[in-house]
Amino acid sequence: MMSPATDHSGGRALVVLSGGQDSTTCLYWALRRFDHVEAVTFDYGQRHRVELAAATRIAADAGVRQHLLPINTFSALGGNALTDVAMAPETGLRADGDSELPNTFVPGRNLIFLTFAAALAWQRQLDHLVVGVAQTDYSGYPDCRAPTLAALQQALTLGLDRAIAVHAPLMQLSKADTVRLAADVGALPALAHSHTCYHGAVPPCGECAACQLRARGFAEAGVEDPLVARCREEAACR
Amino acid sequence: MMSPATDHSGGRALVVLSGGQDSTTCLYWALRRFDHVEAVTFDYGQRHRVELAAATRIAADAGVRQHLLPINTFSALGGNALTDVAMAPETGLRADGDSELPNTFVPGRNLIFLTFAAALAWQRQLDHLVVGVAQTDYSGYPDCRAPTLAALQQALTLGLDRAIAVHAPLMQLSKADTVRLAADVGALPALAHSHTCYHGAVPPCGECAACQLRARGFAEAGVEDPLVARCREEAACR
Repeated sequence: MMSPATDHSGGRALVVLSGGQDSTTCLYWALRRFDHVEAVTFDYGQRHRVELAAATRIAADAGVRQHLLPINTFSALGGNALTDVAMAPETGLRADGDSELPNTFVPGRNLIFLTFAAALAWQRQLDHLVVGVAQTDYSGYPDCRAPTLAALQQALTLGLDRAIAVHAPLMQLSKADTVRLAADVGALPALAHSHTCYHGAVPPCGECAACQLRARGFAEAGVEDPLVARCREEAACR
Repeated sequence: MMSPATDHSGGRALVVLSGGQDSTTCLYWALRRFDHVEAVTFDYGQRHRVELAAATRIAADAGVRQHLLPINTFSALGGNALTDVAMAPETGLRADGDSELPNTFVPGRNLIFLTFAAALAWQRQLDHLVVGVAQTDYSGYPDCRAPTLAALQQALTLGLDRAIAVHAPLMQLSKADTVRLAADVGALPALAHSHTCYHGAVPPCGECAACQLRARGFAEAGVEDPLVARCREEAACR
């Protein structure tokens, strides 16, 4: 399930594409491996709409059909109101900006993403799901671990009555290894348009934890971040 | 996982309550079995809003806290548009009425319901999920089968890092057995307010497949349907 090998194996795949570094790398990994690739992007109330724009740009540049699916449930689950019917759940879209937004983190969120992706894959006759989760970076998120994905693969295969393979090619990779994989599969140009900054800034702030983690991975791999290069060329980077 | 036994076992449970006959029976089954019971109802674009009203009435009558969670993803997935970004997905609520509505059936829908329920259970510190699916009635729906729920239980337990038990007390029961179970657990008065009719009619049409299936179950169990009795008393039944 977790092999980062880039050999072509055929088949039809759906990539969960958030517009970030990891899922963009997975998209290009999938393009090398499968005969046909589509992407699904979830509009679930993420902090910054710029992520959605990045995903759409990246899919278009790759020539991949992108499905955009709304999920209004996380904001209802994740807000301070626990969605008691006595309290109107907040379901509207939030404005962009740096102000503190309601927490939309929901435990098991990747299970939901993969299950909706599997339903879409069923409709589109795609047999492989590809997701950019990594055990190394997200050890605090139990829904990103390999045993969880293996159990979910089983539930999806039984529940849809169709063999669904879940691939997490970054599962065992460090951030530096992910950069090396991106280079191997030709994803570096696309990473110039991927979004990482926690503050939603374009160009990225370079100072938040997400920006620093990304910068460290590129530094350790000895590769210049194409996003940094693009910003410099556009004379907009700090 | 599938025991219909009604012995009290303690614990805290969340019932997936649609407002129909089966989930209402499960609510009362859970009230017998667990120390604390809450309910979750999904507003996912079902054909008839009267189902939501039935669920709210039934939860209130049972003295159970009801969580109402919106899911706008099914209508995007299930419509004729396959949510390509080039096509605006229909995500608005549909009007009531008998006109043909867009198909919101999505394969694996019960996997989604249970996964969102598990996320809510995690937040509410509930350890048991109860769902009214039945292998006997829904043999065409692979996400309603016992092996699927067993695999999902494993995925949820791993993905949330918390033991989650999935209970499907109706799994092996015929419709007549479900009526007998409803009588055993004291659910019959509540069934007077449950919704079944495929046409969303109140009083029920009595002629659609859903009404006829329900009627056959009560007839075979030798029990009068409390919904029929209520309609007669209210002099509104055909």
